[in-house]
Amino acid sequence: MTIEASKGEGQGRQIRLGMVGGGQGAFIGAVHRIAARMDDNYTLVAGALSGDPARAKASGAELGLDAARAYDSYQAMAAVEGRRTDGIEAVAIVTPNHLHQAIAREFLNAGIHVICDKPLAVSLEEARSLQDLARKTGLIFAVTYNYSGYPMVRQAEAMVAAGELGDIRVVQVEYPQGWLATPIEESGQKQAAWRTDPAQSGAGGAIGDIGTHAFQLAEFVSRLEVSELIADLTTFVPGRRLDDNAQLLLRFGNGARGMLWASQVAVGCENGLKLRVYGTKGGLEWAQENPNLLWFAPHGEAQRLITRGGAGAGPAAARVTRTPFGHPEGYLEAFGNIYAEVARAIRAAREGGKPDPDSRFPTVDDGARGVAFIAAAVESSKAGGKWVRIGSRP
Amino acid sequence: MTIEASKGEGQGRQIRLGMVGGGQGAFIGAVHRIAARMDDNYTLVAGALSGDPARAKASGAELGLDAARAYDSYQAMAAVEGRRTDGIEAVAIVTPNHLHQAIAREFLNAGIHVICDKPLAVSLEEARSLQDLARKTGLIFAVTYNYSGYPMVRQAEAMVAAGELGDIRVVQVEYPQGWLATPIEESGQKQAAWRTDPAQSGAGGAIGDIGTHAFQLAEFVSRLEVSELIADLTTFVPGRRLDDNAQLLLRFGNGARGMLWASQVAVGCENGLKLRVYGTKGGLEWAQENPNLLWFAPHGEAQRLITRGGAGAGPAAARVTRTPFGHPEGYLEAFGNIYAEVARAIRAAREGGKPDPDSRFPTVDDGARGVAFIAAAVESSKAGGKWVRIGSRP
Amino acid sequence: MTIEASKGEGQGRQIRLGMVGGGQGAFIGAVHRIAARMDDNYTLVAGALSGDPARAKASGAELGLDAARAYDSYQAMAAVEGRRTDGIEAVAIVTPNHLHQAIAREFLNAGIHVICDKPLAVSLEEARSLQDLARKTGLIFAVTYNYSGYPMVRQAEAMVAAGELGDIRVVQVEYPQGWLATPIEESGQKQAAWRTDPAQSGAGGAIGDIGTHAFQLAEFVSRLEVSELIADLTTFVPGRRLDDNAQLLLRFGNGARGMLWASQVAVGCENGLKLRVYGTKGGLEWAQENPNLLWFAPHGEAQRLITRGGAGAGPAAARVTRTPFGHPEGYLEAFGNIYAEVARAIRAAREGGKPDPDSRFPTVDDGARGVAFIAAAVESSKAGGKWVRIGSRP
Amino acid sequence: MTIEASKGEGQGRQIRLGMVGGGQGAFIGAVHRIAARMDDNYTLVAGALSGDPARAKASGAELGLDAARAYDSYQAMAAVEGRRTDGIEAVAIVTPNHLHQAIAREFLNAGIHVICDKPLAVSLEEARSLQDLARKTGLIFAVTYNYSGYPMVRQAEAMVAAGELGDIRVVQVEYPQGWLATPIEESGQKQAAWRTDPAQSGAGGAIGDIGTHAFQLAEFVSRLEVSELIADLTTFVPGRRLDDNAQLLLRFGNGARGMLWASQVAVGCENGLKLRVYGTKGGLEWAQENPNLLWFAPHGEAQRLITRGGAGAGPAAARVTRTPFGHPEGYLEAFGNIYAEVARAIRAAREGGKPDPDSRFPTVDDGARGVAFIAAAVESSKAGGKWVRIGSRP
Repeated sequence: MTIEASKGEGQGRQIRLGMVGGGQGAFIGAVHRIAARMDDNYTLVAGALSGDPARAKASGAELGLDAARAYDSYQAMAAVEGRRTDGIEAVAIVTPNHLHQAIAREFLNAGIHVICDKPLAVSLEEARSLQDLARKTGLIFAVTYNYSGYPMVRQAEAMVAAGELGDIRVVQVEYPQGWLATPIEESGQKQAAWRTDPAQSGAGGAIGDIGTHAFQLAEFVSRLEVSELIADLTTFVPGRRLDDNAQLLLRFGNGARGMLWASQVAVGCENGLKLRVYGTKGGLEWAQENPNLLWFAPHGEAQRLITRGGAGAGPAAARVTRTPFGHPEGYLEAFGNIYAEVARAIRAAREGGKPDPDSRFPTVDDGARGVAFIAAAVESSKAGGKWVRIGSRP
Repeated sequence: MTIEASKGEGQGRQIRLGMVGGGQGAFIGAVHRIAARMDDNYTLVAGALSGDPARAKASGAELGLDAARAYDSYQAMAAVEGRRTDGIEAVAIVTPNHLHQAIAREFLNAGIHVICDKPLAVSLEEARSLQDLARKTGLIFAVTYNYSGYPMVRQAEAMVAAGELGDIRVVQVEYPQGWLATPIEESGQKQAAWRTDPAQSGAGGAIGDIGTHAFQLAEFVSRLEVSELIADLTTFVPGRRLDDNAQLLLRFGNGARGMLWASQVAVGCENGLKLRVYGTKGGLEWAQENPNLLWFAPHGEAQRLITRGGAGAGPAAARVTRTPFGHPEGYLEAFGNIYAEVARAIRAAREGGKPDPDSRFPTVDDGARGVAFIAAAVESSKAGGKWVRIGSRP
Repeated sequence: MTIEASKGEGQGRQIRLGMVGGGQGAFIGAVHRIAARMDDNYTLVAGALSGDPARAKASGAELGLDAARAYDSYQAMAAVEGRRTDGIEAVAIVTPNHLHQAIAREFLNAGIHVICDKPLAVSLEEARSLQDLARKTGLIFAVTYNYSGYPMVRQAEAMVAAGELGDIRVVQVEYPQGWLATPIEESGQKQAAWRTDPAQSGAGGAIGDIGTHAFQLAEFVSRLEVSELIADLTTFVPGRRLDDNAQLLLRFGNGARGMLWASQVAVGCENGLKLRVYGTKGGLEWAQENPNLLWFAPHGEAQRLITRGGAGAGPAAARVTRTPFGHPEGYLEAFGNIYAEVARAIRAAREGGKPDPDSRFPTVDDGARGVAFIAAAVESSKAGGKWVRIGSRP
Repeated sequence: MTIEASKGEGQGRQIRLGMVGGGQGAFIGAVHRIAARMDDNYTLVAGALSGDPARAKASGAELGLDAARAYDSYQAMAAVEGRRTDGIEAVAIVTPNHLHQAIAREFLNAGIHVICDKPLAVSLEEARSLQDLARKTGLIFAVTYNYSGYPMVRQAEAMVAAGELGDIRVVQVEYPQGWLATPIEESGQKQAAWRTDPAQSGAGGAIGDIGTHAFQLAEFVSRLEVSELIADLTTFVPGRRLDDNAQLLLRFGNGARGMLWASQVAVGCENGLKLRVYGTKGGLEWAQENPNLLWFAPHGEAQRLITRGGAGAGPAAARVTRTPFGHPEGYLEAFGNIYAEVARAIRAAREGGKPDPDSRFPTVDDGARGVAFIAAAVESSKAGGKWVRIGSRP
């Protein structure tokens, strides 16, 4: 296996990056920054890091930003950076969900590429408007469904594409967590607070926060589209305003069947995203918590354990691999792979080149699909559990 | 831990056992015989081992039965054994499903205890008639939901009963297999042939053969009743007449939610029965293929691995344990535990004693409940996936 | 895969078995009885179950023995049974180690086959005398190194024999337990008491009780002989008179190298026998606590998980398999496989037939080799850790 | 748990870093750069990246170095950078082993802190001279035994320090790999070539390359010193000039016993560093390939699975943790933790502050100890396997 030990080094000038959200005390903003930094593809030069001007300044200083580029509003940042000759080329949006759309529009309109956290938006209308604007501007718009950045997820997708599983019949995906088993949002846990607040999260609780990751992973690896679903969304913790447990039946366009479970009240579970795909010729299993492994069972043969960097892993995995087999990569590296793929796309765009056919990163279309999924699940559950269709991609 | 190394030894006279079905080439009949033999509680003295008289004789001879007690019909066996002073005290019924009811009636009417393989019957009416007759005769009627015989399943049930999980919220159960991913029933595989034949199996394929095990396990451990369900039953293998994949949403009486997946087309899966139960205070996980382990996660503490015979296992597990920790017990031992519990009950009945409150074995009522489950699942699926209620137990 | 669900059924008349030791409260005696009973090959008809005559009688009654055949000395038992036309054909010796030799001699001299627990004897002289007598009498003499009865151990040996690993280079074997981490022998724990008493166990503590199992397993699967070893035997628990931790370097005849660790003070370990074998063409791993699995890594390919009954398992495993893949077999079944192989040998001997070339069970020669191993380890350790040779087999 | 999502951000001015070695095609140099970059603590400003001047220039350009600071010799670099007011504050040495000493001396003499890959040097004399010079200059000298940077290794060490294991009795450590099972050094694999060349690696093959990691990990977590050892070093691959398999018995100062196995010919093993420690009160197990987990078995209780970021993990782990439980960190993050700890020390030194008592990173003394270990192992093995003492630390 050939490993490109540090992906961005030597690939040319770094991409100038800005960030909206992610000030002091934020979790996901810091993750985005490590992901951007990992391969030396980006340099963070501007930010509107907090809605609170003082905090925005302080956060900018902490991160070593030029004070003039630590903006106190994203509107100001888009306007100024859009005009600077050394302005940012891309912006990372890491605010709560309800702000994504307005921010993304502002930067798209300023001619700046967008990397937006998921879910893309809090309504299907918002999502559609972003799809339209992205299409119109021709800018790159990535949505950080980061789990699809894992090398062995890429490997799985490649194996499905190569027909190694035959026709897909069954797709089982689950994402259990236990951290919201008690109402910690009531005692000021910041991560819990916004995730359980419909005003900031939209209509989906567990289904939006983690169910969308599971959905995206299932469609990405199976290369199928869910055509309809039944959802039973439940709120177990008294006083909570959004679902904290979501159980769904899925039907795929080709006749395959699936189940999706997302929960925030599964005590003892940490971040248990797991995918299993079964076809006529073989079965696959991958679990996020030990992500360097991929189980593959060819029909009628002994199961194999394909390892990142190992004998059974091919070019799709190698493309996003930094270390040899047995040297585990994790969550940050997978997140970094999304940033690395986007960097390749931005560099290709700079040069007016064609997109790389082997590139894989979730786009605004994947983001919109996730929003459509949330909407369908909420609708099905409200209707007491009936089949609801999701339109297919454009 | 105190281990009763061989449970039946020294417990008094062996129980005289007969068997219907289980002749040459049968799988589950031999399993029942090992289970009966394991603890020296039973002695096999009579059989109607095959519907084919010559094969019945030959099978009897092979098993060392007195030729006079190798019957060529179960009717003859019930009649003769019911009259002998040294006649059988219990009969094991190990035929295909469609014969269970008539055979069981015959032996109940002859005053003989019944141990019947699952599912109990092929229709709810049959099941109800057996419940009635069993109640009327006062005889013991066990249904071999053998997976509930595993020590760590007993441990799990005891922990739920003791409140260690708090109020149950989520129950996830699955039973994937892959052996029927191709139409092996067409090439004469006997086990596949009758399981995919509605005339012998009833209206349920995967849902009846393995889904019922999953359902029984979920209700047994959670100590809850499923009140309603939605089922999506699918037949993936062309030409097959019964479902080979079953996916269900479950709602329990107390408001808990669940999912059940049973599949015979999950390539690479062997006998993957797995149960997870999550309550307000803790979570549990148990998997049949490594059955000596039970995961327990108390809320807010590190997960524990409770082992059969180990420090965290209590009397409910010890009661059905033969070997110390680290000396794995398996499928046959769990099956043997059902037989051992039934033997204790038969001995208590002999002596007119009261049933042991710590005894646990599935009865005709559990059998009937499994049949009701199959009926509800088939009904829901035929209706395109609507909620169907299952009545609660009597 | 063809499974012979109950191995002894239909194989002809049961073998009449006697037992020395194994009375009330014993552990391993009950294990031997379940193992003998499992496949219906044996019927227990006589015993000298305890050195205490009253307990011998009571134990016999409990097991349903004819009172006349519940002997109060093994000498009486050998004499009487050796003369009866319906006398025992084989005896199981399940006493503490120091008694094995005298008892075995008595039964060999009475023309009765022997199944003896391990280690065979407490000195090399004793072991050699038993080898000689067994050879002279031509009787079958099995030593219950039961772990070599596991199907996946048989599979491993067959794969080595077939050259799938190439030339063996490294053999790592370990057997950690933690149950003797405190001096429980001082508070009357019977199993602990005799195992830590040189008068009953011989010169080896952990090295004799479990180290011999590890040694036998390593030689059996690798098909190599250890030629020399260095041992560091340690007693960690104050007041204990035998080693409770044994660490060894091994050199094999072909130049392969190995390590062996046996411990009774490894807190948290239960019965952690594990073997790893590495050759020029592949590597193998097997662990007793989840014994239905065998890892096989062919050089330059993805690792495979071979399961008992599954696609990668061959005839050597199938021969000792009762249930299909995914239906776990355990410790008792493996023990039963030794009894089943001995039964086949006894039946072949009855008929004057040739031994089955596919038969594998540990004999008096393996027993003697285990004793030689203990002696060499004790010698090396006493000498402060120098290489000590073990002679090769005759 | 409080997570410092990006450790270096906001900690003040970045540290100016130089690198010797690590030019195009190198593996470990790129790893050091990612590790340095991850937390934004360092900025790479100078390098002597290759012994070949053209390659040094090209490599520097690729990494975005100022051409004037892409030196063609480390001597020039030390001289120039030592005089610049904005010269490097620290140098990372990532060349083959035989060059470490001369390079490190050069930078120490120029007043520059050193971060050196392991093993520190190719002889004990070299190692001692570096210890002396480091002591004399008072500069920071880290040796990248990176595996001790894993959070759960830090957790394990803290638990031993807190007495949760009681007195340590047994330490088992192993580091099997399989990548050198064939003579790939003969076909130009660069990583294999220098590792199997005594002129570049020193007297140890597997024992030096990976055995030292295992040794350091065992001493670090157990908080004990190995006092003597027996080694059996073997070369299995024909034509290879250094050992590719090392097996050792260890004795620790407090009477504890251990074993160490390091192999490059264990086919199927990838990077299988694993440590187990057993004391009077508990046992621990950690494995590098799934490094976010730590098994802890308190005597007489069920085993617990402590997860990075989870309920059982304390401040020692949290100090070096970036992401919440269930979001796996890996090899690069652990390597980054060494760099982060060194950064804290360098910043403290800048300010003349006292070293942080919770800081843990391997120093020149640990490096020297690793060299002493290699020397003792080689000596023991050459002597045919006798106990050789390692002096204790100063």
